[in-house]
Amino acid sequence: MNLLILTADDRLEKDRYRVADHRAKHIRSVLKLAPGDRLEVGLLNGPLGTAVVESTSPDGVTIHTENLTTPVELFPVIDLICALPRPQTLKKVLSISAMMGVRRIFLVRANRVEKSYFQSPLLHPANYQRRLIDGLSQGKLTRLPDLSIHDRFRTFFEDTLPAAVAAEEQSDRVGPIMLLPDQAASATLTDCWKSVAGSPPLIVVAIGPEGGWVPFEIELMERLGFQRFKLGRFVLRVETAVTAVLAQLELLCAHDS
Amino acid sequence: MNLLILTADDRLEKDRYRVADHRAKHIRSVLKLAPGDRLEVGLLNGPLGTAVVESTSPDGVTIHTENLTTPVELFPVIDLICALPRPQTLKKVLSISAMMGVRRIFLVRANRVEKSYFQSPLLHPANYQRRLIDGLSQGKLTRLPDLSIHDRFRTFFEDTLPAAVAAEEQSDRVGPIMLLPDQAASATLTDCWKSVAGSPPLIVVAIGPEGGWVPFEIELMERLGFQRFKLGRFVLRVETAVTAVLAQLELLCAHDS
Repeated sequence: MNLLILTADDRLEKDRYRVADHRAKHIRSVLKLAPGDRLEVGLLNGPLGTAVVESTSPDGVTIHTENLTTPVELFPVIDLICALPRPQTLKKVLSISAMMGVRRIFLVRANRVEKSYFQSPLLHPANYQRRLIDGLSQGKLTRLPDLSIHDRFRTFFEDTLPAAVAAEEQSDRVGPIMLLPDQAASATLTDCWKSVAGSPPLIVVAIGPEGGWVPFEIELMERLGFQRFKLGRFVLRVETAVTAVLAQLELLCAHDS
Repeated sequence: MNLLILTADDRLEKDRYRVADHRAKHIRSVLKLAPGDRLEVGLLNGPLGTAVVESTSPDGVTIHTENLTTPVELFPVIDLICALPRPQTLKKVLSISAMMGVRRIFLVRANRVEKSYFQSPLLHPANYQRRLIDGLSQGKLTRLPDLSIHDRFRTFFEDTLPAAVAAEEQSDRVGPIMLLPDQAASATLTDCWKSVAGSPPLIVVAIGPEGGWVPFEIELMERLGFQRFKLGRFVLRVETAVTAVLAQLELLCAHDS
């Protein structure tokens, strides 16, 4: 836990907060903080700052925040489309996405997605939010990614996604860039990047299921403007591919800003 | 399993091989292959090719290879130094390293490494090789990374590493590049890359423990030629940092070759 994430529910009054769950245990047992010690905190969907431990007990930890004012701005916005993976993989994808600053996560049906995955308890908001907050806490970010679940492939790509992208578009900027990692492609992410004039305000990345998208799915996505590119010379697991594409984007964005 | 990795122990005669462990189960239960079906195979530390299933039974699967001749060459060579992480994290680091083509893995002691980690059964060759082979099987690579364990930080960096690097050096090429991801750095990997004339034949990357290297360690590594750089705007877990740096290197190498 690199950052203690606080929510409105934790607030006692003004700048005093109390946590009594796994976060309190972490502060006492792992960080071993005592009254008077400082730690880094962030308000969920809000700013970063520091806090001072007021009291600790087996029942919980009370802190007061000092300067909870540093905004967390991530630009450009990265939206991740992910063919719904099996629950063990989804846990990792959620954590990595939050840790690396993804703004929206769209979990979609695809030909190679098992229907049973849509029944996973992990898709209940209380369960996936816990994973996302853990990721924010690791990455030292505060914006909770929006997560939505789409059980129709075609409806998602033809209707839902264009509407979601349009809602983000600002007429005075370049359009979004939509990316499709594909081992069979010859272009790299750098090549796709060069095709855009200036840093795009919105980047959409679509990660396929284990076994990959089927040809029909790739054709439909390409028709809708997705650009295929090769992540590397190896075939990656879903969660490793998510990390790899976000890391490559981070490198390219750092040199555009 | 994207690639069935075969070893000399699996060989019956000439181009006939028999597997009877989890690989056989995977071929029968997951891939659901029957006699006459083809699959991609690779010889450990050898070439890639295809094979035809000859027979399957609950006792094992017999195949014959057809064209086991495609060499797997990864250039430049990437060596990974990793402060020995806790066993659960090490499992992931081993799998990712093999999957993404790391050639040598040096597991080293650091100030923030718990001594008990050196007692993990995972450090027995039979145990870690299984993880590495799983990674190769995922990444469709065949070269088993060399793994070594170093329980003295200073001896490793001052004596062992320079000797290991020197053994790789070719006088007609540019020297190795040694990299140290550090959230406090301002340079990116692209900046470090530009400081090298041409693609380096050897890239050494040092990933710190959870909590990071201590200042003494960073100073020693910088004195020995390591360049600090920032992976991104977020703080990553060890295994995520390994993936991120390998993915960024992959992008840069693709445009140098």
